[in-house]
Amino acid sequence: MKVIKGPQVFPRSEYMRRLSAVKAKMVEGDILAVVITDNAHITYLTGSVAHSYDTRGVVVLASRDEPIFILRWMDVAAAVQETFLERDSIIGYSEELMGDADRNGYDAVIDVLLDHGLGQGGIGFEFCNLAVDSAEKFKRRLPQARIIDFSNEVTRIRTRKSDLEIAVLREAAAISDAGVLRAAEVMRPGMREADAIAEIVGALARGANGKPGTWIATPFFCATSRIGNPHTTWSEDSLRKGSQVNLEIAGVRHDYHVPICRTFVLGKPSDRLQRIHEAQLAGLEAGLNAIYAGAVSGEVAKVIHSTTEKHGFKKRSRAGYSIGINWMEKTTSLKLGDKTVLEPNMTFHLHLGSWVEEDFGYVLSESIRVTESGVEVLTKAPRQLFMLS
Amino acid sequence: MKVIKGPQVFPRSEYMRRLSAVKAKMVEGDILAVVITDNAHITYLTGSVAHSYDTRGVVVLASRDEPIFILRWMDVAAAVQETFLERDSIIGYSEELMGDADRNGYDAVIDVLLDHGLGQGGIGFEFCNLAVDSAEKFKRRLPQARIIDFSNEVTRIRTRKSDLEIAVLREAAAISDAGVLRAAEVMRPGMREADAIAEIVGALARGANGKPGTWIATPFFCATSRIGNPHTTWSEDSLRKGSQVNLEIAGVRHDYHVPICRTFVLGKPSDRLQRIHEAQLAGLEAGLNAIYAGAVSGEVAKVIHSTTEKHGFKKRSRAGYSIGINWMEKTTSLKLGDKTVLEPNMTFHLHLGSWVEEDFGYVLSESIRVTESGVEVLTKAPRQLFMLS
Repeated sequence: MKVIKGPQVFPRSEYMRRLSAVKAKMVEGDILAVVITDNAHITYLTGSVAHSYDTRGVVVLASRDEPIFILRWMDVAAAVQETFLERDSIIGYSEELMGDADRNGYDAVIDVLLDHGLGQGGIGFEFCNLAVDSAEKFKRRLPQARIIDFSNEVTRIRTRKSDLEIAVLREAAAISDAGVLRAAEVMRPGMREADAIAEIVGALARGANGKPGTWIATPFFCATSRIGNPHTTWSEDSLRKGSQVNLEIAGVRHDYHVPICRTFVLGKPSDRLQRIHEAQLAGLEAGLNAIYAGAVSGEVAKVIHSTTEKHGFKKRSRAGYSIGINWMEKTTSLKLGDKTVLEPNMTFHLHLGSWVEEDFGYVLSESIRVTESGVEVLTKAPRQLFMLS
Repeated sequence: MKVIKGPQVFPRSEYMRRLSAVKAKMVEGDILAVVITDNAHITYLTGSVAHSYDTRGVVVLASRDEPIFILRWMDVAAAVQETFLERDSIIGYSEELMGDADRNGYDAVIDVLLDHGLGQGGIGFEFCNLAVDSAEKFKRRLPQARIIDFSNEVTRIRTRKSDLEIAVLREAAAISDAGVLRAAEVMRPGMREADAIAEIVGALARGANGKPGTWIATPFFCATSRIGNPHTTWSEDSLRKGSQVNLEIAGVRHDYHVPICRTFVLGKPSDRLQRIHEAQLAGLEAGLNAIYAGAVSGEVAKVIHSTTEKHGFKKRSRAGYSIGINWMEKTTSLKLGDKTVLEPNMTFHLHLGSWVEEDFGYVLSESIRVTESGVEVLTKAPRQLFMLS
């Protein structure tokens, strides 16, 4: 039997708003079709959250209301259920294109372009994520087309969220908070790091306020000898009296990720740890006070850097980055010298983390929304150095 | 303070073996350096398992024992700890390259190539994963170099595992089994799907036989109205009497993923469900009997397809794919017509899953190793349709 639409996270009008923004960019560039290949962009423009490893593409046509979603035949049912698209906007490609040396799902995408008479017009591609061999396939089979780089255009549109997206981010933020609180609840000397993680990822799945997490973003869990780096996971060791854990997690709702960092110490913090906490706390609060619609990104970063420096810690890394679907949006950073003017409903991971020596670092962060007059802090876990015993 | 090497999963000789195979391919193509950009390949050639979202590259030089690993400065400590590389083979690039419109970590990779006098020689790139805009950067800054496509070469080398890798895959398989057993233990009518997932991912973190999982691969959990598709996760619903759950999970050790599929029914299975289980079980067993070093991939697939068809179910999808680091290796499939000759220590996810209608499917699979005389089944969870009540 055929499936029907499942519960929709966003109304059709939300996708039409997003597509209108894409189409406005297409008009600027005299582009008749855009081939979307970034997974986050596919989610953004269709509502698809099924995670397939297989080649997929979304074609946005200037002449058509809905985009066309091309994916492996077995994923069609999920696309019908999850996305706002009508059935005639979803095309499954045959199994023959799987595991073949010469052909893949992009051949089906090209067939759609040719069927729509687009062999000769301007076609946009996301050069920022499209692999060279795939690009060559498009060029080879569309020799008359005018190939245009559409890199980062959708990411730029994503940067400013709708109120509907903000509501989803708030749900994800509550899950992040639950993960932090669960970590504080369970971590004790003698516990294997992996057992702590089991509890934390369990909390990220269970969610908060009756809203489950919809994906597990594997935590960064940098303990003891790994507190000087930001991107490792747990080890085979157990926590010990005196262990420090730098935790970075993200609650997820419908692929919207809201990160948060907190640091834990099993016992009494060293003087240096206490001081770096205070430095980052001061920097974070100064940053929050500097954010409002109209503020310049680089100026916010400057306030944060100078505040932590006044407290004796020079922060080397940028002070944050834009967040949304799949954690990070690569186009906008809170970094020194950045000229981006903040707009209402931009959302950032405001990240004070510092890795000051190879064997020492500290993390504290919040995810935030820019408002007309200031800032909404989405994450609400206690803003402290957690001392557990 | 500087960090020192942490526990190593593989000895230096294992990486030297892998690199020798890469270098042999380089000699064939008169290539002086290869720029490795696929994350799984970076793991394979260095031992790095830290997951950074930032641009990273590994340069394999024909003239140098160790490759050179170029990554963001803050990730250097993790690279020192995790990889087999000496310090002078690890180069951190500056924060200025982060979030910049024009420059990124690949500029640091290019600097390394130029420092080694490689501006004019043959340089290999992985066109199968390198984005167009990055490739253009390499071409622009290395105008005299002879750019060569090195796509899939490392994946092909990865396909046949060493005994050391097989040992790690066995550890991961035991975790997959533990995840299946935990699912069977906890799933009951009335339980939220998310709460079942919390228990399953907890099991994947805790691991088996004292070896924790080292990463959480988010499960595919297709229940009730979603049993006709393979790649969705859990919903906001609760399980009910009669619910069917198609579960696909992977235990992970040091980024080696071992997938397994099992199906669960909360109550008595329908006649159709019982029959499709029997069809897939027969197909799986026939497939296992057909596998040995020297068998041809497409012939194994043929045995599987014809067996399930004899039982009344036509399987549309390929019967399996190569597994290893990061779940799937894209080069080798067990599919009809495939001419690959199986070799000892090739490893596959032998996947009987069928999605026969948009609202009906069934999954059963094992991860296996090809041996000289036959097959080793890595996953050992009971090969049954789990009936829970």
